[in-house]
Parts: sequence; C-alpha cells; structure tokens
Amino acid sequence: MVMITPWEVKGSVDYDKLIKEFGVQPITPHLKQALSDHVLIRRNFFFAHRELDVALEELKKGEVFVYTGRGPSGPMHVGHLVPFLLALDLQQRYGVPVIIEMTDDEKFAVKRDITWDEVEHWTHENVLDIIALGFDPDNTFVFRDSEYVRHVYPLLLRIGKHINWSTAKAVFGFKGDTNVSLIFYPTYQLAPTFFFPGKRALIPCAIDQDPYWRLQHDVAHKFKAKKAAIIHSKFLPPLTGLEGKMSSSSPDTSVWLSDPPAVVRRKIFKYAFSGGQPTVELHRKLGGNPDVDVSFQWLKVFLEPDDQRLARIEQAYRSGEMLSGELKSVVIEKLNALLERLRENRERMRDAVKDFMYEGKLAQQMWETYYK
Amino acid sequence: MVMITPWEVKGSVDYDKLIKEFGVQPITPHLKQALSDHVLIRRNFFFAHRELDVALEELKKGEVFVYTGRGPSGPMHVGHLVPFLLALDLQQRYGVPVIIEMTDDEKFAVKRDITWDEVEHWTHENVLDIIALGFDPDNTFVFRDSEYVRHVYPLLLRIGKHINWSTAKAVFGFKGDTNVSLIFYPTYQLAPTFFFPGKRALIPCAIDQDPYWRLQHDVAHKFKAKKAAIIHSKFLPPLTGLEGKMSSSSPDTSVWLSDPPAVVRRKIFKYAFSGGQPTVELHRKLGGNPDVDVSFQWLKVFLEPDDQRLARIEQAYRSGEMLSGELKSVVIEKLNALLERLRENRERMRDAVKDFMYEGKLAQQMWETYYK
Repeated sequence: MVMITPWEVKGSVDYDKLIKEFGVQPITPHLKQALSDHVLIRRNFFFAHRELDVALEELKKGEVFVYTGRGPSGPMHVGHLVPFLLALDLQQRYGVPVIIEMTDDEKFAVKRDITWDEVEHWTHENVLDIIALGFDPDNTFVFRDSEYVRHVYPLLLRIGKHINWSTAKAVFGFKGDTNVSLIFYPTYQLAPTFFFPGKRALIPCAIDQDPYWRLQHDVAHKFKAKKAAIIHSKFLPPLTGLEGKMSSSSPDTSVWLSDPPAVVRRKIFKYAFSGGQPTVELHRKLGGNPDVDVSFQWLKVFLEPDDQRLARIEQAYRSGEMLSGELKSVVIEKLNALLERLRENRERMRDAVKDFMYEGKLAQQMWETYYK
Repeated sequence: MVMITPWEVKGSVDYDKLIKEFGVQPITPHLKQALSDHVLIRRNFFFAHRELDVALEELKKGEVFVYTGRGPSGPMHVGHLVPFLLALDLQQRYGVPVIIEMTDDEKFAVKRDITWDEVEHWTHENVLDIIALGFDPDNTFVFRDSEYVRHVYPLLLRIGKHINWSTAKAVFGFKGDTNVSLIFYPTYQLAPTFFFPGKRALIPCAIDQDPYWRLQHDVAHKFKAKKAAIIHSKFLPPLTGLEGKMSSSSPDTSVWLSDPPAVVRRKIFKYAFSGGQPTVELHRKLGGNPDVDVSFQWLKVFLEPDDQRLARIEQAYRSGEMLSGELKSVVIEKLNALLERLRENRERMRDAVKDFMYEGKLAQQMWETYYK
C-alpha cells in the first residue's frame, strides 16, 4: 500500500500512478528544455507540475517568484537539498526572488514530543545549511513562521476562512485526533503564494506537498491571485533501497549534511543498497543493475551532472567491468566533496544569516509589509 | 430549545439548569460578601463560578490577575460593559492587574462577510469604550490578538497540541463547515490564562464563554499553571423582553454606547418590554410586574446600585403607584447619565490608548515578554 500525505510516505511510490491520482501534469521534453538544463530537471527527478507552462512565459517577464521551504525538526540530509538546488538554479538563471519559509509552527504542531527550543535550534541550523548553497542575500527572504507571524496573521485567518474542516480532512487526511494547531497550519503554507500581488509563485517541492497546492488553486481567485505553479520532485531514495523516504528517525537511511568523510564512507559501504552481484566472479560475468543500485541512483539524480561520465559509469557497472565497491567509491568522493564545500560555505555565511532574514534588500522589503 | 455556544445563544435561558449542565458552582452568599459589594455581585447578576473560592484567598495575597476581553466586530452596547465593570471593581478593590484581549482574529474568523478593515475599525472604537470606564493605565494591558501574536504564537501552538478535533467539536459544537481559523482560535482565548506563571487568572465573563474554561481546566496542568477561576454572568436582557441576547443585527434590541439621549429616550419608550398594565386604570388597580419589566431589570442589574431606592421603585411599581412611563423615565435618566460620563471619558482618554496598549507599566512588561 502506498500512503502519501505531507507528514507520511509509506511503501513504494509509483510516480506515474501519482501523476494520475494527484491530477498533475508530466513535464514534457519541451518544458524541460525551456526551463533549465539543471541535472535535476534533465534527469527527470522533477517529474510533474501544475501551471509550469504558464509560469515559464511569465518567468521571462519577471512576473514570477520562487517559493520553497523547510520543516526544521532535525538535521538536514542530502535529500532535503533537492528543492533548494532547483530554487537556486532558477534564481541564478532568471534572477527571480526566492522566498524560503521555515515552518517551525508545523513541525512543533506535528511532532508530539519535540520542544519549542529544539525547533528553534534546528531552525537556526537548517537556515545555515540552506543559505550555504549560495542564494543571493538581496533577492532571498528566509523567515521563521513564528517570527514573521505578526506580518501575516490576518492573511492566515482570511485563508483559513476558505478552508473548512471537511475540506481539510479530505485534503490532508486529518482525523479526530489531529490537533488544532496542525489543522490551522496549512493557512501558513499557502500564505507566501500571495506575497507578491500580480506575480505567480513557482514552487519546487516533493510530490507529498501537493495537497497544499490543490487548496491554493481552489482559493486563489478569492485573493485575486494567480494559481501557484508547482514543480514536483520524486523522493531521493534512502540508502537502504528504492522504497520510502529518508527519515530522521532512522539516521542510517541517509547521509546528513553534518556527516564527516569517514562516516559517509562507512555508511555508503555498509548501507547503500547495491545492484551488484554477490561475488566478484558473478559480477564480472552478469554485471550490476544500476536501476536498483542506490549509489548509482544518487549519482544520476544529483551527484554526477556530466551526462557522458554518468553514461560511462552506467555502462561499466552494467557490463560488470565496474564493481560495487568501485561505484561506491565514486559516490563517496562526490558526496564528500559536496559536503565539504557546503560546510565551508556554512562557516563563511554565519554573518550573512541576518541579511537573508532581516537586512538584505528583499528581507527589508518584507519586514516593511503587512498582509491582510 | 436553548442553545448556548460562544457564538450563539437562542431561546430562554434557565440559569439554574445551566449551573447543572455546565457543571459550574452557584455563588454562595458567603462568597459574594467576601468578594465584592458591587451591584453586579450583590444582585446575583454574576451567578456562578469555577474556583472562585480558591481565587478569593489568593486575591488577597496578590496571586491573582483579572482577564477578560471583547470580540470587536461592531459597536458596544450596555450589556457588553458587564464583565468590564466587574474587572474594574476588582482592580480598584484589590489592585490586581487586568488583561483585556481584543479578539480581532475570532471575530474575523466567525463573521462570514466582515472585512479585516472593519474589524480594525471596531477594535479601535471598542478599546476607547473600554478604557473610558476608568482602568489603571499602568496596571492594565489591552492588546489586539493580531498585533500581539508574535509574542504568543509558540504558546498558542503548544495549547493547540493539547486540543484535538474531536475535543474541539464536542466542546464548541464545531461542524464540518467550521473554518480552520475558528478551529484554531480557542488557543488564543486560553493563552492569557498562562501569562503570569504562578498566578491564577480570574475571569469575569458571560456564561456562554464557559466552554473555553472547561478546556483550560483540562490542559492547565500541562502548563504547570493553575486552573482559571471564572465568575459567570447572566445575559443582560434585551429591551424587547427577557429572552435571548442583545444583538448587533437587531439594533433596537439594545442601547448602544453611542446612542444620543433622544435615541435612548425613544428606544426605551418604544421597545423596552413593560410589565405594566394596558391602561392606567388597570395599572393603578392591578399594579405592574417588575419581574418581566426590562426597564426595572436594567435598574436592578446595574443602573440603580442603591438598594433602598431600588426597593422603593419596585414597591411603587408593583403597587401601581408608579406607571410604566414613570419607570421608563427613571431608566432613561440613569442610562443617559452613564453614557454621557463614558462619552466624556472616551474623548479624554484618546491619548491614553497608547498607555494601555504599549507604554504603561504593565503594557511595557508584556511587550518585553515572549511566551513559548
């Protein structure tokens, strides 16, 4: 059984089936080419959309802003980078403003035992991880829901007036034991789509967030706003195999941004699900299966953007020429290079947090604005 | 049929029955005497309580604060003054801090067609009406929910984590078409009861607000807080008779604080339900019935605090010596004197709004505090 809500993904995900069930559109080759040649687009990791065709025209006319976010309840793993990597690419490619919402309220509401202090701690840590990617401090606004709330509360209430219990229950799978803080939260995830009147929000996110955007499409006209354009990603497969999502509760299912090189090495060797054969002899004879091999999939999704090099690795692995251990060494090297670069940026960017959150050009403008 | 929720009161209210149904306590003569000789207490208009006996001891030791509020969706009528009159009496008698919550969020959430600008307008007007009563600007904090939200949002979320849909539905009568802003709102009405750690909130309010306090009692221990003490009032009967509540949607059911003397006069003569006889002859012969006469009831509840004078009026009216028109003239005079005094204060207090909301001693302290 597959179950997908913003708070739960279980079982093996059939993305073609999701396209039908969620009523989203597949991304056509034409759209891909027109939007970006970023590896996450080229290799179809972003696989579906809503309104992207319309947004693409507006993107070139400066009528679009990019909006994404992060629920700060723990450390970030490499899979969490996906929407931010695309947001960054779009900012660099089109010069668009980027809005990054830290949903401290959501995570506090949904995690039974988390304290507010823990949420604050992870918010600070995650913000550093995110800005380390290289966003423009004058064209990016990072905000904590709990801190910006004074500027949006009437807007949240207004959005909430258009969402009743029956709808929320149907859209999010809320039940009798769902708490009222979580029931109200969706208003805040919709709110940023109304931040720039006349402009369309373009939202890179994982497919599990789609319920919010269905609601946004239902209510947008009440706010004289455009329907948000969404570009949906798959889930980066956990180290342990192609099923489910990586999870903070099972730390060995993923590589965390804070994992030092030796830990990355150990994890990949120990946990990364391999498509190789049980013995070297069999592997040389039968070859490996890159389609189920998590190391290869990670290279394909984001670690090896060079198409020719990826093709050579795939061919070598499939033919048996490249062994599992060799493939894993490639991934380890790529991962550690990425993490090392991010950690360096992270330290350099500590003083820049205030620009993204308060003092940069866009941030200043946002702190001067109240939304009703 | 009687139906009572914070947003709806229909039918004739049997207060003795409510005491049983709501599980509140009647106010004993001993408690009355010990608490205050204010007319609203002496004449049993505040008729029930929770935890008042405990609060009374703490009140004398400075371990209590008074909390009440107002939903600012329209002009205030004389009935709206009731909880504030008692709060003021308690402040003057015991020197307690008073917290006054302007629930702009609630009113915006619950009124389908109201705009945010209207709510802001009425908030400002209502605040003036309230402070005109004579609260201490250094010991009273008046706040708008939407403005103070940044200081309490984590607390609201924490309260909300302890209230699930099933509970909210049972306590407030929420239904499938209840919007998510209203579903979240109760967290904000509970929040001020946790504003002063170690101190108990004492809340004068109408009985229809009791559902909130049942919830507060259920969750208080999670916040290491004391159960709120509540002192419940009846509803001031509308001009038109003893049933139901006065209502903004039927302006002739009440006297509004802004009604000029001639309007008060016309309304009382035209609409105030009379216990008198159809003709002067019959009235002289049979006498009037003060028990159903709204003019007399208003005198009794709050307009004639002198017991002897009230007794004389009652006797004269019951005996037929005093005619309905004469009784109405007494009420008109008392009402217009009260309204005139409030209107004068209101103009004098315009500059003091900032003290109650931002600059007074208590207000400053509250704006320096963040609640998690």
